[in-house]
Amino acid sequence: MTYQLHYWPTIQGRGEFVRLALEAAGAEYVDVAREPPGKGGGESALAQRLSDPGNPRASFAPPFLVDGDIVVGQTAAILLYLGPRLGLAGIGERDGLWAHQLQLTIADVVAEAHDTHHPISVGDYYEDQREAAQARAKCFREERIPKYLDWFERVLQRNPAGDVHLVGDSLTYADLSLFQLVAGLRYAFPKAAARALATTPAIVKLHANIGRRQRVHDYLQSPRRIPFNEEGIFRHYPELDG
Amino acid sequence: MTYQLHYWPTIQGRGEFVRLALEAAGAEYVDVAREPPGKGGGESALAQRLSDPGNPRASFAPPFLVDGDIVVGQTAAILLYLGPRLGLAGIGERDGLWAHQLQLTIADVVAEAHDTHHPISVGDYYEDQREAAQARAKCFREERIPKYLDWFERVLQRNPAGDVHLVGDSLTYADLSLFQLVAGLRYAFPKAAARALATTPAIVKLHANIGRRQRVHDYLQSPRRIPFNEEGIFRHYPELDG
Repeated sequence: MTYQLHYWPTIQGRGEFVRLALEAAGAEYVDVAREPPGKGGGESALAQRLSDPGNPRASFAPPFLVDGDIVVGQTAAILLYLGPRLGLAGIGERDGLWAHQLQLTIADVVAEAHDTHHPISVGDYYEDQREAAQARAKCFREERIPKYLDWFERVLQRNPAGDVHLVGDSLTYADLSLFQLVAGLRYAFPKAAARALATTPAIVKLHANIGRRQRVHDYLQSPRRIPFNEEGIFRHYPELDG
Repeated sequence: MTYQLHYWPTIQGRGEFVRLALEAAGAEYVDVAREPPGKGGGESALAQRLSDPGNPRASFAPPFLVDGDIVVGQTAAILLYLGPRLGLAGIGERDGLWAHQLQLTIADVVAEAHDTHHPISVGDYYEDQREAAQARAKCFREERIPKYLDWFERVLQRNPAGDVHLVGDSLTYADLSLFQLVAGLRYAFPKAAARALATTPAIVKLHANIGRRQRVHDYLQSPRRIPFNEEGIFRHYPELDG
């Protein structure tokens, strides 16, 4: 069965957490909105699907995943669904819940990273909320990034199965998402991320290990990996780093 | 088995979504931090548990739930765990995922409601970020509340089993959480909430129905229901409404 991922075609964004899980597991999937318009691609087709009156369970926003007649939206819920199917959710209910809890905490950081450039209004341009953005980014750099990364470092250090993975001794979607979080923070806030990561060696090692996995490595080198850019969640505005 | 809920003892906050599920199901639970200090209550005992080096899976923040030797943090993950156990997750995997997706979307609104009074820094006082708060609250009132409520209204209207519940034809934790969202918005933004709810009759009906359920009604009248206040997520600052 080929999974259909529906997400904005020009950014990593929240969809990237799903792409990474599918890629790391070698799953067959189509990134639908990146297909040509004749094959259902493009942003307008994506927007149309969201407002399809024939779908009583349409998502509030992308990403959403279609698997046969199952449709799931919300990044963390998609990973909850895919996790056991892709072998990326650890062993049993307990690991599955823990992986999900980690994912939800990553989602919290991601929302905060987004709000550094849009602290006032999602609908307005960054340039129109730059002053508030600088204040919010300062707090994010100085308080939030260290607090979150310290917590993930502690999770790794305290893992009874060793500090290579967040959950037990095998790869889960939470590891892949932490990889993506580190990549995003390094892109958007190179100076602040470097400072925080200097005190979290297990996270740095996890990021490097994930990037070396064959399938992940191949994906990152491929045109399927959209480069970070200033339309996504992690945006590099030098005035917000420091 | 008595569930132990661990959450800040003086606010509804995110813990309230868990309290409502436990109360509506008539489950036995202890709201630990609200117990006397001799019984493990109080904020400092709560903070201590979060940083307990003996717990390799300690949560990033409250709430967390203890059920025997299972510990789950993150509101939505707690409800994912409790849902089937309390009979509040619909029928089968599909309903369970849909209830969870709805919950995650409610969590997104809740985070945005919080940021109306803390748009710059969680660590600073509201009074020190009042100007940005007014700008963010305006956008929340005019764009975000209507957008989210319209979506939930559509979910109710399109439910093939009728518009009484969000998921199928039985009560789920998503219904209870939507009830709480409406209560919170009405408290924090009475004018803006009234305007938006005037166009979402099914949500208004759901809120009234939930409030009339015997166990929920009893809970809301009891001292166990902490009143809304200006330390929680939904805060009534008249200058942020309008």
